[in-house]
Amino acid sequence: METLRIATAGLDLMADALRAQDADVTAVDWRPPAGGDPALVAALRTTYADPRVDAANARALERLQEARPMIVGAGRAGELIPGLEGRMVLHAGPPVEWERMCAPQRNAVAGACVLEGWAATPGEAAALVAGGRVRLAPAHSLQAAGAMCGVISPSMACWAARDEVGGGVGYSPFNDGPGDAFWLGLGTPEAIRRQREMADAIAPGFAAALQADGPIDALALCAQGIAMGDDCHMRHQATTMLLLRQALPAMAEHAPGSVGPTARMLAVNGHFALTMTIAAARAALAGIQGTPSSSLVVFISRNGTEAAVQIAGLPDRWFTAPAPLVEDPLYRPGFSDDDAAPDIGDSALVECAGLGAAASAASPGVAAFLGGGLADAIERTRRMGDICIGRSERLRIPTLDGEGTPLGVDARACVDLGETPLINTGILHRADGGQIGAGIARTPIAPIRDALRALADGLGTAGS
Amino acid sequence: METLRIATAGLDLMADALRAQDADVTAVDWRPPAGGDPALVAALRTTYADPRVDAANARALERLQEARPMIVGAGRAGELIPGLEGRMVLHAGPPVEWERMCAPQRNAVAGACVLEGWAATPGEAAALVAGGRVRLAPAHSLQAAGAMCGVISPSMACWAARDEVGGGVGYSPFNDGPGDAFWLGLGTPEAIRRQREMADAIAPGFAAALQADGPIDALALCAQGIAMGDDCHMRHQATTMLLLRQALPAMAEHAPGSVGPTARMLAVNGHFALTMTIAAARAALAGIQGTPSSSLVVFISRNGTEAAVQIAGLPDRWFTAPAPLVEDPLYRPGFSDDDAAPDIGDSALVECAGLGAAASAASPGVAAFLGGGLADAIERTRRMGDICIGRSERLRIPTLDGEGTPLGVDARACVDLGETPLINTGILHRADGGQIGAGIARTPIAPIRDALRALADGLGTAGS
Repeated sequence: METLRIATAGLDLMADALRAQDADVTAVDWRPPAGGDPALVAALRTTYADPRVDAANARALERLQEARPMIVGAGRAGELIPGLEGRMVLHAGPPVEWERMCAPQRNAVAGACVLEGWAATPGEAAALVAGGRVRLAPAHSLQAAGAMCGVISPSMACWAARDEVGGGVGYSPFNDGPGDAFWLGLGTPEAIRRQREMADAIAPGFAAALQADGPIDALALCAQGIAMGDDCHMRHQATTMLLLRQALPAMAEHAPGSVGPTARMLAVNGHFALTMTIAAARAALAGIQGTPSSSLVVFISRNGTEAAVQIAGLPDRWFTAPAPLVEDPLYRPGFSDDDAAPDIGDSALVECAGLGAAASAASPGVAAFLGGGLADAIERTRRMGDICIGRSERLRIPTLDGEGTPLGVDARACVDLGETPLINTGILHRADGGQIGAGIARTPIAPIRDALRALADGLGTAGS
Repeated sequence: METLRIATAGLDLMADALRAQDADVTAVDWRPPAGGDPALVAALRTTYADPRVDAANARALERLQEARPMIVGAGRAGELIPGLEGRMVLHAGPPVEWERMCAPQRNAVAGACVLEGWAATPGEAAALVAGGRVRLAPAHSLQAAGAMCGVISPSMACWAARDEVGGGVGYSPFNDGPGDAFWLGLGTPEAIRRQREMADAIAPGFAAALQADGPIDALALCAQGIAMGDDCHMRHQATTMLLLRQALPAMAEHAPGSVGPTARMLAVNGHFALTMTIAAARAALAGIQGTPSSSLVVFISRNGTEAAVQIAGLPDRWFTAPAPLVEDPLYRPGFSDDDAAPDIGDSALVECAGLGAAASAASPGVAAFLGGGLADAIERTRRMGDICIGRSERLRIPTLDGEGTPLGVDARACVDLGETPLINTGILHRADGGQIGAGIARTPIAPIRDALRALADGLGTAGS
């Protein structure tokens, strides 16, 4: 008797039924493209068929490869960021009103009002903002981007990055460390004290170093950091020390008073370079914003209420969905999904720049922290590779014998495969703020689908 | 017709003859133990059969696991190293007279005499040493150990390490960087200037930090360094920055004048922490010296003329052989084996402490530098594992999902398998000094065989 060999595709129903009859079944994990949605399939067909899209993406990828975002400034946000004036506070994510803002981000906004002297207490601050007497705006609206809550007010210390090649700009507030910190949704007196110390004592040291030695090639530090186990999103240990090593000689000479506070900060804050990276990655990515017809994802941005994306072909247009919970969470003892704020932060833009999840394979340390091993880390880089059109020529992964990190997230591939960028990120307490865990988040697919449909519509309108 | 399936062992002659007749041959790479030498086979049999050896090795391994060598001092060698008095210069490797000393080491010794003010020129210094008016002694004779030429004179900056658990001590001179440097066999005016700066300006900064914050747990820094791509022999990039990060806050507060010189030195010297590691590893290993009956290799030490080993059961007794050339050399352009000094340095003791070649798998960067990939790096760790009786509980390799580095090199396994510790090392110019390359050296087997025979003889004499 011959044995039938059967392959099934798609739903498990058929395979399970056959297995129940002792048949030898190979189930192929096939899914219909675009989830089987006819309008989306049409958008996919349009964008894959139109040669302008591939050409635009290739051009955008080339610009990303050539980008050399440099850190050109360190100082008070109000002095560095054009447009950050008066009683104005920037926040991570797409636009959100005070009423819909998540609690950790509210904490940070209220803390900023106290830091600035606009209110004496967080309660007073909340009333001020709710009454419309403090302007709120997305950081991206002023070419800035912040990690987690991403709150920036004028007197906070801030990095300025500029990519002379592509012309992009990026600002990001200094990272204020573990525990009581604005980025983690706490605007406490200790968090305020840290902000003052960073602006008064630490930023001037870096400013002096920049003035003496010239701009810092941030992605060169990231490339070395990745060679030393950083993913440059969840882990910045090496990159932070490389930044210190580079700036220290000039800081010691020209701003010796900054050395002690900087050294004390960095000794307890392995994430310090994160926002240098964010500023630089934003500047690189901003260079491909407004590449007509390009389906590359430029920014991923969340505010704990909504998650949003922008694609290169449709600049400054946010496509949004409710912010999801982090998918593979690792909580501190005593915390669970019930305590977790939804995914938050502008930092996920680094995943579009070949860093973070794209660089997972370089960081078995992050994988181990999340309870996995090198194979899991490599798998995450491979998954990012499935939705990227290139590999970074600059950011190379030692554990993959120097293979470049995936670069150029293509909305078409995301929609086609139902895969979206992974995001190595932290988790905040939904009510109180403060970090309660970390994990891998996944960008929701809905805004990427919406962006692709909008891109296809535009291509049709413009004719080919 | 049935097909014969044939396995052969040992020499290829039989397999080749059978293959010539189209036979299906599996050739097993078997070699007779101990190279087939009857006296050695007897020594192997004695040491494997005597339960005292396994028990001693297990005890020694446990002490290595428990060792916590701490950096307890930084300052002038003459003030830290008991016995380093008068016109005395220490050198790497087993004892060697001036006449047999290799040229790079002579350069460094002569430079030391100029540094100390005992001679005005290297020529005058050479005459002084040749005339017996400067005492030469192996660094190990005063519980010190130096990288490459390993020259130490009283006014050089030096680390002091102590392991309170096992009672071991280790000293090692500050690493003087690339280019014109004593450790690389150059005693030029620039090399002398650096020594003065290290002793006058840099060591006091670390001394102040040690005084303020207490001893530095050197292997804790190495463990983090290994998690960040260091092998802690050929690569110390991360460990060097971790050392800086740890010492900097106190240095900035208590010895601010040291910050600038230290920052400038470390910005160009990624090997700076190497000798901190050597001092600490020596202290850990010294704790198992004099474990009766133990066949563990404690020190591997070369002076460019001879290579030598000590085993734990026969303390302070050097077994020597001519120093070999580095086996897998990578030369700077224009240099070849003809220019290379034989293998040199006390640093190979780190390979007996779970570092260097044992940690190769942690450092795909070193593998890439040597022209290979992660698989080659893992293979080198595996080869070290073949001759080690344990795995470090402290030094863990991220690319092997946290597996410990091989620890406890057993002379019996070396003799049995014909494998000896690999050594990640630099290569000096044989006539001029100065670094001309790097590569993997292999400890010669002859001294390990001699040590094992001597151990077996001792066991027989003592009776069982």
